Amino acid sequence: MLVTPKGWTGPKIVDGKPVEGSWRSHQVPIPDVRTDDEHRRLFESWMKSYRPEELFDASGALAVELRALAPRGVRRMSANPHANGGSLLRDLIVPDFRAYAVEVPEPGTVTAESTRAVGCLLRDILATNRDNFRVFGPDETTSNRLDAVFEVTDRTSMAAVLPTDESVGPDGRVMEVLSEHMCQGLLEGYLLTGRHGFFSCYEAFTHIVDSMFNQHAKWLKVARCLPWRRPIASLTYLLTSHVWRQDNNGFSHQDPGFIDHFINKKADVVRVYLPPDANTLLAISDHCLRSRNYVNVIVAGKQPELQWLDIEAAIEHCRKGLGIWHWASTDAGAEPDIVMACAGDVPTLETLAAVEFLRSIFPALKIRVVNVVDLMALEPSTVHPHGLDDPEFDSIFTKDRPVIFAFHGYPTLIHRLTYRRTNHDNFHVHGYKEEGTTTTPFRMAVLNELDRYHLAGDAINRLPVSAECAADVRRRIDETLAEHKRYIESFGDDPPEIKDWRWHAHPVL
Amino acid sequence: MLVTPKGWTGPKIVDGKPVEGSWRSHQVPIPDVRTDDEHRRLFESWMKSYRPEELFDASGALAVELRALAPRGVRRMSANPHANGGSLLRDLIVPDFRAYAVEVPEPGTVTAESTRAVGCLLRDILATNRDNFRVFGPDETTSNRLDAVFEVTDRTSMAAVLPTDESVGPDGRVMEVLSEHMCQGLLEGYLLTGRHGFFSCYEAFTHIVDSMFNQHAKWLKVARCLPWRRPIASLTYLLTSHVWRQDNNGFSHQDPGFIDHFINKKADVVRVYLPPDANTLLAISDHCLRSRNYVNVIVAGKQPELQWLDIEAAIEHCRKGLGIWHWASTDAGAEPDIVMACAGDVPTLETLAAVEFLRSIFPALKIRVVNVVDLMALEPSTVHPHGLDDPEFDSIFTKDRPVIFAFHGYPTLIHRLTYRRTNHDNFHVHGYKEEGTTTTPFRMAVLNELDRYHLAGDAINRLPVSAECAADVRRRIDETLAEHKRYIESFGDDPPEIKDWRWHAHPVL
Repeated sequence: MLVTPKGWTGPKIVDGKPVEGSWRSHQVPIPDVRTDDEHRRLFESWMKSYRPEELFDASGALAVELRALAPRGVRRMSANPHANGGSLLRDLIVPDFRAYAVEVPEPGTVTAESTRAVGCLLRDILATNRDNFRVFGPDETTSNRLDAVFEVTDRTSMAAVLPTDESVGPDGRVMEVLSEHMCQGLLEGYLLTGRHGFFSCYEAFTHIVDSMFNQHAKWLKVARCLPWRRPIASLTYLLTSHVWRQDNNGFSHQDPGFIDHFINKKADVVRVYLPPDANTLLAISDHCLRSRNYVNVIVAGKQPELQWLDIEAAIEHCRKGLGIWHWASTDAGAEPDIVMACAGDVPTLETLAAVEFLRSIFPALKIRVVNVVDLMALEPSTVHPHGLDDPEFDSIFTKDRPVIFAFHGYPTLIHRLTYRRTNHDNFHVHGYKEEGTTTTPFRMAVLNELDRYHLAGDAINRLPVSAECAADVRRRIDETLAEHKRYIESFGDDPPEIKDWRWHAHPVL
Repeated sequence: MLVTPKGWTGPKIVDGKPVEGSWRSHQVPIPDVRTDDEHRRLFESWMKSYRPEELFDASGALAVELRALAPRGVRRMSANPHANGGSLLRDLIVPDFRAYAVEVPEPGTVTAESTRAVGCLLRDILATNRDNFRVFGPDETTSNRLDAVFEVTDRTSMAAVLPTDESVGPDGRVMEVLSEHMCQGLLEGYLLTGRHGFFSCYEAFTHIVDSMFNQHAKWLKVARCLPWRRPIASLTYLLTSHVWRQDNNGFSHQDPGFIDHFINKKADVVRVYLPPDANTLLAISDHCLRSRNYVNVIVAGKQPELQWLDIEAAIEHCRKGLGIWHWASTDAGAEPDIVMACAGDVPTLETLAAVEFLRSIFPALKIRVVNVVDLMALEPSTVHPHGLDDPEFDSIFTKDRPVIFAFHGYPTLIHRLTYRRTNHDNFHVHGYKEEGTTTTPFRMAVLNELDRYHLAGDAINRLPVSAECAADVRRRIDETLAEHKRYIESFGDDPPEIKDWRWHAHPVL
């Protein structure tokens, strides 16, 4: 081991103060050399102490014998393949994700834990890619319903394994440590050296690595401009245990704003997906795991929730990124009276329940339901490669009809993405507004006005409905919400008409 | 010391697996007690092991003799005054900040390092509030030009002080440690126990504490609803070494997005200020240091830069939050042809230079210059208490004129704040778009199209100017930018016409 003084061989004393061997050598060691003659003399004698005449030839080039010392070709430090991980990258072997599909005979009639399906996919990827794939997460693999992975591997631990431990061992390929910083750092290193990974994290606590994500995204932006840098596997986050399910946690665990932070980075690097159910989550996960040079964020629930699309419909929906759900709409392909849009699992549920409620009051109302999986599809095509062009966007969201948009995150994010669109002035976004704490899923939605009744009430405000009729519906809504509140406060659970609500197919007009 | 097994006195074995003394006691120790008879029996025997009949009376209340054990009044743990720091809070003694004002005889003619003036204010606050004020920051107090504080105190260190150390000592009141996490944590504890503080941080690295800020803001939101909680001093961040000055750092040090993250929190908690010069910074700092129960963010440059307002004008401008700079405008109080708006020090400089350039080409053009110090004034008054009401906003930004808005941060933030305003469709925002690395200040602006020429060019695009004339100006702009690029690449410095640019007062029409 060689220990040297800080700033060794630099100036010893400047202006009577020690520099070499002190903190000052970390600053500008000799300031103002252009204007201070004494400093310039000192600077010159320091530079000359390296005897440049022995190091460089008359033309200023490095001396031939010194140049010869540098290693050549792949022996150069910069040519170490681990520093250009893409050159070592092998494709991940991903089984056909259709095999993990949840059976959905009719939309909105069966429930499943969406992340559990991904857990099975990850298990089989772990089993078939034993040396270049790992799963990362802060002690939440089981809580996030990914525990199928423990059928084929363990959590990594180099410490002694106790008899009471389960799924813990030195060869485990699940990196579980209650430090989002460590998970992120380990995963970045793993990707940068040519391997693949998957990071599952509580949504609110992904902010812990905001700054680390920044640096990785910036690295990817710059790396894209260097032709010799080979693409690396994408960094994929699964944000679950999200803001809308606070059955056991509370206000401290509510922050859907990682995606706000995330999309400030370059459009050619960042991707955001909000699959509303298990099959869309499978299709998106497959896509993300195969991708290169991106940072992907997937937001998805882990709780049992209604399923909407069978696997083929899910694939088609995810391919487009967003689209009209004709089976839930009553506009029969004509210009609708209103668009009910949604992004995220809980907003999708509440939107469909709002549609059913509206349908029951106004059977002739032409409602269009739009679901958004790929958030970047909302942006203009000139801003993000996934963005819809304006005519296509207008054909879905209309040019002049009210759009009630139920969004998973902070409402302003939707405005930020859509403010240049023709119909933006008619976008009315509901989302999280920092209300609610440990409570039932429905109460969380109500407190933030994202629930079916607030959505339906907002729709009625925007429709040409008689004042009398609107007042009547609003009274019904207020009474229903008051009744639910009483039930929830008495029983600590959502009322059966909410909990057991199912989508009822209706004849397409 | 008492060491107990994890889950001590809980169930020993459930389903044949140890619970007490193992990680399982951290989970649900006995699941499914409603549906599993064996588990319910186990649960009952566990609960009965605490002998509830000895603890509670027949009505279910805690037994009298046990209730008597609890301390009373201020002896209760929850009544510890340090847990309700506001009850211990004494007002900070703040000297009149006018005394630190920079002399500004004419706008845009003298330069100063804006943060240096605040350093002097902080020095005198430290001197007069010796036991309840501290300055926090990750080793950047001097770099951020706040080093006047070392005239009256030291950096805190409990380690041995070396002869080469400067301004280091055990009684220092500057908490300097290169961990934003530690700075934030120390400051939160200090505020919560009834003291005052000030946190200066590199703008890009404030993201390191995104998640900690979240929790503090959430705490403040909830504390406001508890009448017994006394208000505490605000947490004030000064973000400096900001994105637009990358003379020594580079791409990794560029992220103005903390404010995007920040304003997702409740409007009654968060405040954002972008003072364009030293005197506005002084007025804002004074306001923030005296405030209660907020989190304040101030973004300000530390480099020598042009000064715009004398102290009285600065006070008046900050009081309004945003306003027309009549001395820079050529609309003489009439309806302007165009509004040139700006928020932040570098955008203000570039906007005024763009105005001068436009004035030189179109002497009759009616330009209105609007400067924004208090970002929340842009939001509707229904959303944020600082928000302007619509008539006032319209009277400043007009209802239909183009607004070229030069913004310190990511452009979408301005759209997010103003999308409900009458004239929003005419807002054209320039800001940071993840371009540039270590380079000159002007080049940073050019790469992100925030510079005077891009702003002027955008203005011309929005004005009823003949195609011929517009093409002519655009050619001049392109030639000038190309010439500057060559200069910067040759000399590593901005050309004199940029570096030495000064505002030239013109007769008010």
